[in-house]
Amino acid sequence: MSLEIVRRIAETRDAVTRFRRAGHTIGLVPTMGALHEGHRRLIETARAECGCVVVSIFVNPIQFNRTDDYERYPRALDADTRFCEEHGADLIFVPEISEMYPRPQRAFVEVERLTEHLCGKFRPGHLRGVTTVVAKLFNIVQPDRAYFGEKDAQQLAVIRRMAADLNMPVEIIGVPTVREANGLALSSRNQHLTPAERENAAVISCALRAAEAAVRSGARTADEVRAAALSVMARRPEFRVEYFEIVDVEELQPVNEITGPVLVATAVWAGTTRLIDNVMVNREGD
Amino acid sequence: MSLEIVRRIAETRDAVTRFRRAGHTIGLVPTMGALHEGHRRLIETARAECGCVVVSIFVNPIQFNRTDDYERYPRALDADTRFCEEHGADLIFVPEISEMYPRPQRAFVEVERLTEHLCGKFRPGHLRGVTTVVAKLFNIVQPDRAYFGEKDAQQLAVIRRMAADLNMPVEIIGVPTVREANGLALSSRNQHLTPAERENAAVISCALRAAEAAVRSGARTADEVRAAALSVMARRPEFRVEYFEIVDVEELQPVNEITGPVLVATAVWAGTTRLIDNVMVNREGD
Repeated sequence: MSLEIVRRIAETRDAVTRFRRAGHTIGLVPTMGALHEGHRRLIETARAECGCVVVSIFVNPIQFNRTDDYERYPRALDADTRFCEEHGADLIFVPEISEMYPRPQRAFVEVERLTEHLCGKFRPGHLRGVTTVVAKLFNIVQPDRAYFGEKDAQQLAVIRRMAADLNMPVEIIGVPTVREANGLALSSRNQHLTPAERENAAVISCALRAAEAAVRSGARTADEVRAAALSVMARRPEFRVEYFEIVDVEELQPVNEITGPVLVATAVWAGTTRLIDNVMVNREGD
Repeated sequence: MSLEIVRRIAETRDAVTRFRRAGHTIGLVPTMGALHEGHRRLIETARAECGCVVVSIFVNPIQFNRTDDYERYPRALDADTRFCEEHGADLIFVPEISEMYPRPQRAFVEVERLTEHLCGKFRPGHLRGVTTVVAKLFNIVQPDRAYFGEKDAQQLAVIRRMAADLNMPVEIIGVPTVREANGLALSSRNQHLTPAERENAAVISCALRAAEAAVRSGARTADEVRAAALSVMARRPEFRVEYFEIVDVEELQPVNEITGPVLVATAVWAGTTRLIDNVMVNREGD
């Protein structure tokens, strides 16, 4: 099976229709390119479950709240193409901006409440840009299943809620975060880190594990858990913590008492590079 | 062909899938029930163009900005069912509120700019409620075509823009307004009018025709056109004009100079009943 590379929406619909008529389940892996082992896990999961795997590669301008971040977001189309081929994608959809936004975009999909905290608080418009482009991609590809990384936990929760609330005929699949040997969650933005930052950024996953350990060993308030985590983060003062929050898993609202499963999530800055990571925590025995 | 009445989303998907597998084009006529000759025109247009005609009947709570309006909105399910059968629908989808909104709705489809004026200005949240429920219905039924009345001109323009901007795989069809002999545009809310109001409400379409005549006879500013129309409305001071606007047909922004096609739209109150109507106007020879 060879990889088909498509730049137009109409051609994408045609190609997917051929696969669907041949009886294949359609899996979509939406990406912004600069593919790494985290994306590989997404593509492989889709490959195992679907007869047709579509990877979209589009650096979506409307989800960047900072121009500098958009401009320096890594692009690597040739390498990405080889990567998709190697890992068994059937089709890559690589639209130009003018194909996705041929006129001023006026229609948006917005998810309330779940976007109030965490990244939603610090990146205004970001999640609305994500839900809008994902809705567009769903309408273009009409996948049976779509695959998203758990690293972007708020994004995943928001997309799940969008799909459920709007009755989108697609199953949303969360795929576990892939990490470096030192625990750093893989991200295309890791390319911007210096070797020292990359090594020391292990502190982020250490802090999350400290939070998890605090919950499991009996901490019952978010303050206790946060304090445990931040004392770990304090070992590396070169990383500036933007947020370190403990929220419920349904609507991502900050909790005080920990009575059920929670999402512990953080964003930190390494110089001008922003890194995020998270862990879902259940109390021992829950 | 007998009419199938379905209350569940899953059953609707199954029924539509059967029609689609049999090779039929799917047409959707979204309504809030209390069906009249305007809806008949929608159903008949769909019938002429599609192998499967689905009528949805759902008084959508999230598009009502006033509780009293929601509560007194006419319901007539038995009559509506007979009406759909008589006019050749294949399927009616009549969900309960709990089927459409099983949890607090957090995801919304919002269209900016086109919703700033006209009804959007006076009914906050109304158009967002419409686009959200229409997006849900599109995702449930997955129609090839969907039919909307031109009487609700802003709604139609907003839905067209939603479908285009979000790449929804559906063609939006506008169907001409059906009128009483005296010119009053049909609306389920006309039931609330007294016989005298119903007769005198002819003034609304007279005012719109006066606006149209003013443009065609050379009026070049919105102020001139509005003055011509409002002098007609003034004959019936019992109707309170909420707005009488002249906007461009692309993004529904108020125009001062009339240089191209415009939408002339009005909302008036007859006691506690709100009526809307509109006309698209091209200059003579355009």
